[in-house]
Amino acid sequence: MHQDNISINNRGHLVFAGFDTVELAREYGTPLYVMDERMIRDTIAMYRVSMENYYQGRGLVCYASKAFSCKHIYRVCREEGIGADAVSMGELYTAMEAGFDPALICYHGNNKTPAELEYALDCGVGRIVADSFRELDLLEEIAARKGRKAGILLRLCPGIEAHTHDFIRTGGIDSKFGFAIELGIALEAVEHALSKPHLELRGVHAHIGSQIFQLEPFRREAEVLMGFLAEVRAKTGAVLSDLNLGGGFGIRYTQADDPVPYGQYMEAVTQTLKETCAGLDYPLPFVIMEPGRSIVGAAGITLYEIGNRREIPGVRTYLSVDGGMTDNIRYALYGAEYTFTVANRAGGDKTLTAAIAGRCCESGDLLAKEARVQQCGPGDILAVFSTGAYNYSMASNYNRVPRPPVVMLLDGTAHLAVRRESLADLVRNDL
Amino acid sequence: MHQDNISINNRGHLVFAGFDTVELAREYGTPLYVMDERMIRDTIAMYRVSMENYYQGRGLVCYASKAFSCKHIYRVCREEGIGADAVSMGELYTAMEAGFDPALICYHGNNKTPAELEYALDCGVGRIVADSFRELDLLEEIAARKGRKAGILLRLCPGIEAHTHDFIRTGGIDSKFGFAIELGIALEAVEHALSKPHLELRGVHAHIGSQIFQLEPFRREAEVLMGFLAEVRAKTGAVLSDLNLGGGFGIRYTQADDPVPYGQYMEAVTQTLKETCAGLDYPLPFVIMEPGRSIVGAAGITLYEIGNRREIPGVRTYLSVDGGMTDNIRYALYGAEYTFTVANRAGGDKTLTAAIAGRCCESGDLLAKEARVQQCGPGDILAVFSTGAYNYSMASNYNRVPRPPVVMLLDGTAHLAVRRESLADLVRNDL
Repeated sequence: MHQDNISINNRGHLVFAGFDTVELAREYGTPLYVMDERMIRDTIAMYRVSMENYYQGRGLVCYASKAFSCKHIYRVCREEGIGADAVSMGELYTAMEAGFDPALICYHGNNKTPAELEYALDCGVGRIVADSFRELDLLEEIAARKGRKAGILLRLCPGIEAHTHDFIRTGGIDSKFGFAIELGIALEAVEHALSKPHLELRGVHAHIGSQIFQLEPFRREAEVLMGFLAEVRAKTGAVLSDLNLGGGFGIRYTQADDPVPYGQYMEAVTQTLKETCAGLDYPLPFVIMEPGRSIVGAAGITLYEIGNRREIPGVRTYLSVDGGMTDNIRYALYGAEYTFTVANRAGGDKTLTAAIAGRCCESGDLLAKEARVQQCGPGDILAVFSTGAYNYSMASNYNRVPRPPVVMLLDGTAHLAVRRESLADLVRNDL
Repeated sequence: MHQDNISINNRGHLVFAGFDTVELAREYGTPLYVMDERMIRDTIAMYRVSMENYYQGRGLVCYASKAFSCKHIYRVCREEGIGADAVSMGELYTAMEAGFDPALICYHGNNKTPAELEYALDCGVGRIVADSFRELDLLEEIAARKGRKAGILLRLCPGIEAHTHDFIRTGGIDSKFGFAIELGIALEAVEHALSKPHLELRGVHAHIGSQIFQLEPFRREAEVLMGFLAEVRAKTGAVLSDLNLGGGFGIRYTQADDPVPYGQYMEAVTQTLKETCAGLDYPLPFVIMEPGRSIVGAAGITLYEIGNRREIPGVRTYLSVDGGMTDNIRYALYGAEYTFTVANRAGGDKTLTAAIAGRCCESGDLLAKEARVQQCGPGDILAVFSTGAYNYSMASNYNRVPRPPVVMLLDGTAHLAVRRESLADLVRNDL
């Protein structure tokens, strides 16, 4: 994996963010999530600075925390001066526990419960991204009862499909999310929101997909949403300020992935936005972007110990690790591909093609069917790259396997962000 | 769903195991797992009695607890007089916490760690199902150090593929599990195990797949394994006693599923086994069967509250519920199909075709794309049948959604087996 924070030391060990990963595995045990907090902070800073440069402070980067949520990551976002997305009471609670400023939170979800909406209002969330007429009505009712005004955005379906895996495509019209622009529903929703005295409609939001490698869908999204804002102005007179373009920037899982540098997204979208606004004679909106995977994905690796190596002559070699679908379900769920290396033999050539099997009592528990790795066997440490997003956050206790800890590496120091689950944790709610 | 414990009361509400499910949802909240403990106990008893009848006590039913593991289910198994499977230290720990007899436990796994093997020996597990030469060597070393003998079975690949979903097929040769008979590896493994002074080789085990609806694969499995035992006798003189046939009996998820009554499996396999043993002049083995899904699957339902109902004209209707892939990942993971009913309108005709969407911020979070349900909307209670297996056990905190509680219904009383996770639980290990 070609990445600035990845190298090999003179013992032939994989070095990640300045740390010998074999030593990390020994100290913290395996499986282990390891994250480069410096890389996370640098990526956040790059987004924040781009936003400042392109929009002169009229913009906000919100970390899409469903990619990786724990108290520490909200602290990092707070310290680096960006906002955050939350998609449940649990994420919001975690952010509040970490002392996050609720005014900088966008609260998403296709089916927020009344209790969650009430909690979000009580917390003082800055922008609740409303997803349905029912939610607008609920919000109005709750805000009225509390004598408050709820700041909201409307989630729109812009009808754009980015090239990505079917499971994580979200911009199309056949979606559980949002008000469709092309059906006239979005305009209805705006009118509905504007009619509610306790709702402050701040703008619109869309999210066109995940793991996107092209600029064009984002440009097109900006055009479509600005066109819609202009239509809103024409029909209702309202000039809405917020344009939330969502996230979806791709990251590198394998060498076949070729992500556009994130600065280029910002530049391209800004250019389109400025041209479109000029053409429509519309004031440049307050821009919100919601990167998640691109902030934490490549900043994380997972370390496993290899247990059994099974050779099935003429068929396949299986390397079993001490984790699997319980800590990384993305291969089983999406067929997601990863890059592997044997951390304690990182200097060697990858001459072995093997299936990487998890430890669960289930044939589908694999991390790869044909991974390229160095020759290796029991006791070796296997590293998987780009596991910072949607690994810990999707982890389960299937087979009653405890979830691994998360260790953060920052400028030469290592600290735990999440402790390893204990056996006692597993039965904590059992009666 | 046609099942003895399912009916509709005079309020038009779905009744499950004698309880009005709408009342259950009100009392315990949603999402809610509900299980019919009487049905679980009756199914267990049926297996146990069949085993007694067909094998005169020379057999053991072991509940495959990965299907649904919590302290209470091991208590139920203990009280009903059967054994259990465990596939991790976590499952074993849970069983021990519930006071389960370790002598009646089969301990499985393709990649048990040395610490787990040591723990299993310390607990006094009756049968460790060894899966590799490495595991045999580890077990010998640990048992020798402790001055004990480890009772083991060998997991074999019988080369049988049952008709089932590719992800959960396990009998074939391209598997992370077991010693392949057809490659001569299984015989080598037997010889290896017999050479170890601290291993007591009690027999062999195989598992040919999941959700199987035919008798033939099980008959064939019995033949192949008995043939192997006869080969072992011929080559080594050892007459092994235990024949563990695994599980895999299908259950009904939709009306299209047509499971064979479990008693018929027992009868058919017994007949084959007796004939095969007679033909080989081999003593009838001690038979172990490992049903998991068939004990708990149809005994569980999930109750959700419907939130948003979205109509996309000419495209699709979406019903969003307050759970989803976090409590039931089987649609997203396997494309698994379920049967739905609106619990508070259960008497009505199912005139609506709708996608059932979960609450996660992910387009793939669906429970069905085209479910047939009664006309319904916000506030209605949606019931999903046959969710007792591989739902709670695979649940995650994705989106930081707390896992639902499990309520058990037994002879007119309801009791919690697992409490609902709290917000505090979500951050318990966060630093």
